[in-house]
This record gives sequence, structure tokens and C-alpha cells, in this order.
Amino acid sequence: MLIFNHETLGQRVLFGSGKAAENLAAEVARLGAKRVMVIASEFEAPIARKVAAGIDVALDYDDVAPHVPIEKAEKARAAAQEHGIDLLVCVGGGSTTGLAKAIAMTTGLPIVAVPTTYAGSEATNVWGLTEAARKTTGTDNKVLPATVVYDAELTLSLPAELSVASGLNALAHCVDSMWGPRADPINQALAAEGIRALNAGLPAVKLDPQGLPGREQALYGAYLAAVSFASAGSGMHHKICHVLGGSWNMPHAQTHATVLPYVLAFNAPEAPDAAARIATAFGSDDAVQGLNNLRTVLDAPRALKDYGFTEDNIPEAVELILPVIPDSNPRKPTAENLADLLRAATAGATPGL
Amino acid sequence: MLIFNHETLGQRVLFGSGKAAENLAAEVARLGAKRVMVIASEFEAPIARKVAAGIDVALDYDDVAPHVPIEKAEKARAAAQEHGIDLLVCVGGGSTTGLAKAIAMTTGLPIVAVPTTYAGSEATNVWGLTEAARKTTGTDNKVLPATVVYDAELTLSLPAELSVASGLNALAHCVDSMWGPRADPINQALAAEGIRALNAGLPAVKLDPQGLPGREQALYGAYLAAVSFASAGSGMHHKICHVLGGSWNMPHAQTHATVLPYVLAFNAPEAPDAAARIATAFGSDDAVQGLNNLRTVLDAPRALKDYGFTEDNIPEAVELILPVIPDSNPRKPTAENLADLLRAATAGATPGL
Repeated sequence: MLIFNHETLGQRVLFGSGKAAENLAAEVARLGAKRVMVIASEFEAPIARKVAAGIDVALDYDDVAPHVPIEKAEKARAAAQEHGIDLLVCVGGGSTTGLAKAIAMTTGLPIVAVPTTYAGSEATNVWGLTEAARKTTGTDNKVLPATVVYDAELTLSLPAELSVASGLNALAHCVDSMWGPRADPINQALAAEGIRALNAGLPAVKLDPQGLPGREQALYGAYLAAVSFASAGSGMHHKICHVLGGSWNMPHAQTHATVLPYVLAFNAPEAPDAAARIATAFGSDDAVQGLNNLRTVLDAPRALKDYGFTEDNIPEAVELILPVIPDSNPRKPTAENLADLLRAATAGATPGL
Repeated sequence: MLIFNHETLGQRVLFGSGKAAENLAAEVARLGAKRVMVIASEFEAPIARKVAAGIDVALDYDDVAPHVPIEKAEKARAAAQEHGIDLLVCVGGGSTTGLAKAIAMTTGLPIVAVPTTYAGSEATNVWGLTEAARKTTGTDNKVLPATVVYDAELTLSLPAELSVASGLNALAHCVDSMWGPRADPINQALAAEGIRALNAGLPAVKLDPQGLPGREQALYGAYLAAVSFASAGSGMHHKICHVLGGSWNMPHAQTHATVLPYVLAFNAPEAPDAAARIATAFGSDDAVQGLNNLRTVLDAPRALKDYGFTEDNIPEAVELILPVIPDSNPRKPTAENLADLLRAATAGATPGL
């Protein structure tokens, strides 16, 4: 039986290397905006100036901080109001997009997002705010950018190593979208397309960090990762990584890159359709083999023990992880099989063997 | 270089066999609608009554006609206004959805569509109106249904033969989405998923017309066909079929079913990525072979000569078709290769040989 509820979020995507300034100007004209606020951190400001060269800017704004502190959000909202802003343009990574979303949340102003990383926030209706060191997140269609302008040239300043780490993170979003709590065949099809693009793009980025074709595929894949993951929700992989990050302060990118193949190997036998989609997307006969091949090419992190996690931590980790794995997970997790998974990931045993 | 502009249309899809009444009631409540107009033709009215059993209906409306004559549209708009309607619910095929769209176009009223066929109109922002025997079509996001409630049980009254013909039509939308004028990788991924679902569903519908699993896959595939085709636009296949239908009055479904494999065989060598996607979606090593296999299983129409088209018509057909094939077509059409294609389709030669 095919039963699902899927919400497709309406959004325009203008994709083209070297076309950001032209596409942004066309979009500002199409929306009829007269008072544009351009948001970019100090670090991103030079890129933003080039991208916004063809539009009238009413306010350049650079007071951006990670995780969108509420005071920064309120200050930015006041600035938007004070300057009679009618369109928010954010140029940058997740924090910059996040600040634009925080303004849109209370003002209803439309956003045109111009991402410079693979963060993916630009393709979702998820907002986040930090107050007194506590992060709150939620969803609201008002914060979904009306348009995203993707230009792979803007990602060239992202170092190859960081690009690959961020791309593997996007890959984890795609894989986990196959069995997240709201997984459905539409998410799975988009996630598979994301895997295909990331599998093509990331090795090319590693090989030729200044080449555009790899960057384009990686950026396109990261977009699909965000769309499918926001719709499907966190699956087993993200629940594990969240616990390891929160309780043992494990590094984000390395933890994701290490854990993913073990989760895939864990679930694949009980999720033959998803496994077949993933295998095809990797251009491989087998999903786990396809992911292993990519990790080898990328020289990806291989063992949690290299990042401070030890066998001794496993019992506590199992206790924390087991209750938060969603019921949608294709293979039922138990204290035993979860401990086995973590043991293999800690040691860096070949996943799937 | 990856360059594209893609507009994703925002829409909720609630999919589940036997769940239409429940899903519709939940959706009416979520939207806070108080004055619902239920649109269904006389023929569809019994289905509509069951589907709407759980909601308060302010107006039952059945004055539906094919191609949405403008007088019918205006009468329906007046009725909606007179009854203070705040939500349109259409239960039926393309004509019924079309009337709801005609009302939404001028009133801005939201639509919840409950399709009973594979027409696909419910997933697009395309409207059509007929005035003095002339059909006008256009796009307007106001006519896109806010929500589609899919229930394969509602399609059981569609005879198997008609279901297969309509499903092959949806398949043609998927294939042509690979190289339509606005084709992009997102359309291609959704179209490939549509091919996968139709290839799984249609043989099951033929084998067991009252079985739900095949109907579900076919309905899901038809939805994706509509989404991808509305975004990509008419490609070579639809241009050919439009000319054959308009100038020689060829039957719609049979013409599409016959022409499709010849267009696929024509383009595949020049569109290796699209051909690979199509092949994978058919679960075949080769796109044309995959489509041929499906047509054999479905006992699909095979030759244009069986529907009144003759070799003598080919020169005139070439003259009409050649100028309307979009520039986006992967293989450049010429008078010669197009005549070859039509000769093969007229005779029913095995496509791809």
C-alpha cells in the first residue's frame, strides 16, 4: 500500500555559474522590489557586492552571527523596518540565510537567497534562533526563500577539504531521507538524484578544486539534499550523530562521514527498494559498495576512534540513541545490533562486511 | 555547464487508498473552510457524495462540460459568489478540475482536488477555457490546487483499457519531459520516477483491474508525469502527436502510444544521460528496449496505419511538424530523419532497430 502525505514547497531556483548578478537583478525586477536589504557577513561582503552590482541596494547589512542569536535577529528586524525594506537578499552560508529567515518570520518579507556553501538552509522552511545559549528551531513557510540563485563560482572560495566534508554531510541528508519519519517516494526520488549529483561532483571538487563542473554538481546535490531531508525528517543516521556530537563533542563533519556507511549497511537489507535506489544513484550494483567507493576516492574519515570516541562509550551511547530512532526505520534497532554498529564505526571496520 | 531555471509549485499531496473522505475532511478543517462548493459531473456525483460525506457542503455543483466552455465557467463563478463559497473541492477528471480552476482564476478561491483519473491537471497551474469553439490555455499559480487528495479506489471505475491508454499518455509526458524546452535535471528526476511507477503499475492494472497496488503506482506515476511535463513543456513527441491529431483527426491515446517509442529511439543516441535515466526507470539496460517491453506486455497500439494515417500523408506531416519541434530537442530533426521516423511509426516497424 502506498500511503503518504507530501508537502512540496513552492520556490524558484535559478541555477547557473557566473550568472548570480544577472539572475538576481532579473529576480528583483520580477518581484518589483524597490527597497532591497542585502545581508552578508563581513567575510562574505566582497562576494555580495559583486552579486548585487546590478541592483539598487537600500541597506547593506553585515551583523551576522552563527546560530542567529535573538538579539541579532531583533536588531536586523528593526533595521529592515526602519529602512522600509521590501525584499531581503542574503548572500552567504547558513548563518546569513538564517538571519534573513529570522527577519522574514516576523515581517513576512520575501527572501532571495544566494548561497555560497552547501548548507542547504535556502531550500527549506526551517528557522533557528538562539536565546541564552538555547537553540530553538521550527518550520514556517514564511521563511522559505521565494527564489534561490545558485552560482557555483561563489563556492570556489570554499576550500576543497571543507567542500568535501560539507558535501558528505549533504550526502548523509540524502541517504537518511530514504527512511526518515516522513519519508515518501517523492523525497526518495529527489534524494537519489542528490546522491547521483554528489557522487559525480565531490570527486571532481577534490581533484580540481577550482573547476566548475564538480562544484555545480555538488551544489545541485546539496540543494536536493536539503529539499528531501527537510521533507523526510531526521532518520537513524542523524539521531546517532546528534547524540555523539552532543554527548562526546565529536566533530560534526567527521562523525557524519564515519557513521553513514554503517547506518546504510544496517538498514539496506531491510529496505531493498531504498537500497536499490541508492545503488543506482551511485552507479553501483550495491548501495554500501557504492558509498564505500566514494569514501575511498574522497579519502573520507573512517573510524570514530580517530575522533576521541572509544569502545567504553558505547553502552551509554546505545542508551541515549535507542529511544530516539524513529519507528520508520526499516530495521528494528536493538541494544545489541546498535552496539555492533557503533563498535564497527569506532574501529573503522569495512561497512557491510 | 549546468544552467537551468526551475519553478517548483507549492502543493500538498495526500495519497492513500480508501482515505479520500478522511483526508478531505482533515484538509477542509486545516484550511478552516466553512462554505465548500463540491464540483463533480453527474457521472462523478456518486463518488463525490462518498468522498464529501465527512464535510459540510454549501453547494453541490454538477454543470461540468469538456474543455470548460466559457459560459459554464461564468455560471459556476456566479454560483460560487452567490453562495459565499470559501473553498472549491473538485472530484473527477480533467474537465471537473478544469472548471474548478476557471473559478479560482477569477475569484482566487483555493482548490482541493480529488482526481478520479490519470489526467494530471490537478498537479499543474495550467488552465484552459473554450470560447466559440476556440480553446485558450495559460498558466496562473492561482489555479494550482492547494491540495490534491489521491485515492486509487476512486479510479477503480475507470476500465482497465482506458486506464492503460491514459497511463501510456502519462508515460509520454514523462519521456518528453526529458527534452522539453524547459527540461532540467529536477524535471528529469521526477519524470524518471514517474516512468518507474507507471512501468510497475500499468501491467498490474491490466492483469488485475480491480487490484489497488497497480492503480496506486499508476496514479502516483500520473501525478509525477503532470508535475514534470508542466515544468518541462512539450517536446518533440507532443508536437508530432498534436499535428497528427489536429490535421488527420487521429485518436489521441493510440497516436501517443504509437509514436512514443519512435521519438525515444530517435533521441536516445543524442541524449545518453536521459536515455540512461529512462532505461534505469524501466529496469532495463536500454531505454527503447524497456519501453518496447512495456508496450508488449500492455498490448499497446503499434502502427499509425491502423488508425487511418498513410505513407501519403508523411510529406505534409513533415512540413507541419518540422518547424514546431523545440530547439531543445537533443537530435536535430530534418525533413529526412523525421520522414523516416513517421514511416517507421506508420508501418509499425520495431522501434530502435
